[in-house]
Amino acid sequence: MIVLLGGSGYVGTAFRRFLKAQEIPFESWSRVEIDYYDPRALRQALERVGAEFLINCAGYTGKPNVDACEIHKTECLLGNAVLPGLIRQACEEVGLPWGHVSSGCIYSGSKDGGQGFTEADPPNFCFRTNNCSWYSGCKALGEECLADADNVYVWRLRIPFDHRDSPRNYLSKVMRYDRLLDAANSLSHLDDFVAACWHTWSRRAPAGIYNCTNTGYTTTRDVVQWIQEELGIEREFRFFANEAEFMQLGQHTPRSNCILDNAKLRSTGFDMPTVEQAVRRALRQWQWDNKLAAVS
Amino acid sequence: MIVLLGGSGYVGTAFRRFLKAQEIPFESWSRVEIDYYDPRALRQALERVGAEFLINCAGYTGKPNVDACEIHKTECLLGNAVLPGLIRQACEEVGLPWGHVSSGCIYSGSKDGGQGFTEADPPNFCFRTNNCSWYSGCKALGEECLADADNVYVWRLRIPFDHRDSPRNYLSKVMRYDRLLDAANSLSHLDDFVAACWHTWSRRAPAGIYNCTNTGYTTTRDVVQWIQEELGIEREFRFFANEAEFMQLGQHTPRSNCILDNAKLRSTGFDMPTVEQAVRRALRQWQWDNKLAAVS
Repeated sequence: MIVLLGGSGYVGTAFRRFLKAQEIPFESWSRVEIDYYDPRALRQALERVGAEFLINCAGYTGKPNVDACEIHKTECLLGNAVLPGLIRQACEEVGLPWGHVSSGCIYSGSKDGGQGFTEADPPNFCFRTNNCSWYSGCKALGEECLADADNVYVWRLRIPFDHRDSPRNYLSKVMRYDRLLDAANSLSHLDDFVAACWHTWSRRAPAGIYNCTNTGYTTTRDVVQWIQEELGIEREFRFFANEAEFMQLGQHTPRSNCILDNAKLRSTGFDMPTVEQAVRRALRQWQWDNKLAAVS
Repeated sequence: MIVLLGGSGYVGTAFRRFLKAQEIPFESWSRVEIDYYDPRALRQALERVGAEFLINCAGYTGKPNVDACEIHKTECLLGNAVLPGLIRQACEEVGLPWGHVSSGCIYSGSKDGGQGFTEADPPNFCFRTNNCSWYSGCKALGEECLADADNVYVWRLRIPFDHRDSPRNYLSKVMRYDRLLDAANSLSHLDDFVAACWHTWSRRAPAGIYNCTNTGYTTTRDVVQWIQEELGIEREFRFFANEAEFMQLGQHTPRSNCILDNAKLRSTGFDMPTVEQAVRRALRQWQWDNKLAAVS
């Protein structure tokens, strides 16, 4: 029996779809049913169902976006830094292996020479480098709370998207934002991400951190071009002149833009598609949500 | 009615003694009775008793000392960074003013020129400066979670002591440690600290941060000399040659040593004794605890 925490969120929903499609028995626990912030309550519930693996997708991401974390500091710290440690406590007490959805947003830029950051590189967009958003700082502290744990997979997601139009979908955002910042980023197709996470556990890859991003990276301008090509949208997309203008006219919370190296994940035998393959695939299967603002 | 959280701890006990001696009605709530980590439970309890002020002495300090926080990261983060924000949420919902026991351990050293740090100086021994213990980092994050709150006193304590021999008492530690590190520090006599905290609220000083340390600072060698003079202890006290030797032979967690400026507190009309006055007073009233190791 697989136990899923945070199954109603954007990433959790993708895990539910995946587990159902694979016919893997699982239970998705909401915090109202089982207070999984209480290690004792979680431990008892895990023992009751005889869990064999736990997947934590719970966390605080801020609505409508990461800027809300600057205001809701306590919730963000509790959900992203403390909760992983509480879950770890429960899982260690029952000897349960588990996986935690972390984020690549604890990095900025790329390594000297342009390569992506590996799991061995310390975060450079966190409280310790004092240049980050509150959200990124909390996510990095969450990884610190798991740093010496034996039995946990830390799966780093970066800028999720798939073919379902949604306020959380990166492609939906690119199509609807008034202006865009051109930046180089690694991205994670949600379905590829979930399959990669499951692969590390089902193949019993060594526990630890995995950058679960599509292979390579892309720029916002590339993504716009693929959108125009695949969806036949002909309008012009407006860009900020540079990051300084973005910070001045757009959001005030510093955003992570970064390139991650997924070689460790691929070395486990998982065939991760490239960013371009994943984005074009999502666009070819694109399903508009008519409740969202139309794309002109 | 005053509500006290964490009343069974070292600082909380001093608050209980003070409030009793002053015949100020108060209730000391343990977490078993009222889960004050749950803002809704806390809010309901505060409304039920018609609280007029709350004092938070709860937090995680690590046993036997701050080194334990490096292992118990999650508890430390929850108790020192998140809890203040949760209490804030409950207090704001019922419009209750309150006070939080913070720590001066978020600083290191002194300002250029040797003066103490004021409340306007940003912490320099915290995650953001990436040189700190986990405990100091968490305490500084706790202050960040309260930074824009209107109705809270943030009382900074530094190296508490009084005349009661105790494993938490700085003077007891100096007398029993095998070797000492000579360093300049501000200190807080527990009774002076509690009286100062209460003064800020009872005189309705503006809410905000207050360095509640005795006036001035001292060195470990000074304290040793006062111990020898006041208690007639003649043995030699051994010192580490320097901080590098201390880090190598002693603890491995970096310790804060710092000088704080208490002028803001004194400007509210509180007559804070000097460090020397406070230490000598505690030593003249010294009460040995025979359960602790004897001092030879």
